[in-house]
Amino acid sequence: MPIDLEEAIALLQRTPAVLDALLRNLPETWTLRNEGEKTWSAFDVVGHLIHGERTDWLPRAKRILEFGETKAFEPFDRFAQERESRGKSLGQLLEEFARLRAQNLKELRGLNLRPADLEKRGRHPALGVVTLGELLATWAAHDLTHLHQLSRILAYPYREAVGPWRKFLGVMACAGHSAAT
Amino acid sequence: MPIDLEEAIALLQRTPAVLDALLRNLPETWTLRNEGEKTWSAFDVVGHLIHGERTDWLPRAKRILEFGETKAFEPFDRFAQERESRGKSLGQLLEEFARLRAQNLKELRGLNLRPADLEKRGRHPALGVVTLGELLATWAAHDLTHLHQLSRILAYPYREAVGPWRKFLGVMACAGHSAAT
Repeated sequence: MPIDLEEAIALLQRTPAVLDALLRNLPETWTLRNEGEKTWSAFDVVGHLIHGERTDWLPRAKRILEFGETKAFEPFDRFAQERESRGKSLGQLLEEFARLRAQNLKELRGLNLRPADLEKRGRHPALGVVTLGELLATWAAHDLTHLHQLSRILAYPYREAVGPWRKFLGVMACAGHSAAT
Repeated sequence: MPIDLEEAIALLQRTPAVLDALLRNLPETWTLRNEGEKTWSAFDVVGHLIHGERTDWLPRAKRILEFGETKAFEPFDRFAQERESRGKSLGQLLEEFARLRAQNLKELRGLNLRPADLEKRGRHPALGVVTLGELLATWAAHDLTHLHQLSRILAYPYREAVGPWRKFLGVMACAGHSAAT
């Protein structure tokens, strides 16, 4: 069942405003705190999304269209934001993400993809053969996976403060479940 | 460790704009779809949050201040939105939620709570003794638990479409974990 490209874009174009509403000017208690050693803060997550806009989703889509399965995608650097976000404010990162996402969706629309194009195949360095439709569905689902993670990161400082309600709050029980994309 | 009331309010006041940015005018593929039998759609979640504004958080806070432990909270109806949302659009629900939340936060500020007030005790019908600070922390964490749930509900229609990336996407592996509050 191939995705409807307009429906995927409807989700993708919302993410910058969602993150802005959630994170801009939120106290640093929330935005710089992570979930313990080797986990990410909200600041780290936005940097990761920026790096994806630059190097992952649209560049991989274009590689599929140009090279098919003959040239694998570049591996994605999950730690790039540690250098690339350095010295920036969260507000700057939110603006950078919004600008890059808008540019990329404009370029995606400009590709004028038809449903048949979504069946085109490329090569992921770890997963092997994937289709353009799978890549674009993953772009949208990847936003949601990080929104899922952000809600958990923001809830983390309150895990004691909620007292006996903790057992009723799903976000406090979430084990994370993510890996590299 | 008591919560900082201003920091809790900083989160609480953001939620209506976050949900609006995420859900308003999103195709019904996303907003009316649930995760299978007896689960909620995004539309259901917003209705549930509205019912909480009307009957749960601030009314319970006022009961603590007025009656302490001597009068238990009214039990919360987790299914009220099935009748209360009937015939309404998601846009209407988003506006109703934003209006009620703004009113409630204005009233909360008007209570002029001091840190010592957060230690005041009330009685939850199932959990027993709880403090005002725990109730207010739970109000904020409850928003996050439903943002966590919403990201999962929206990802659900794409669990096949993402192909082999599914195993990398934490939101696809989330088991829910929620119960009544």
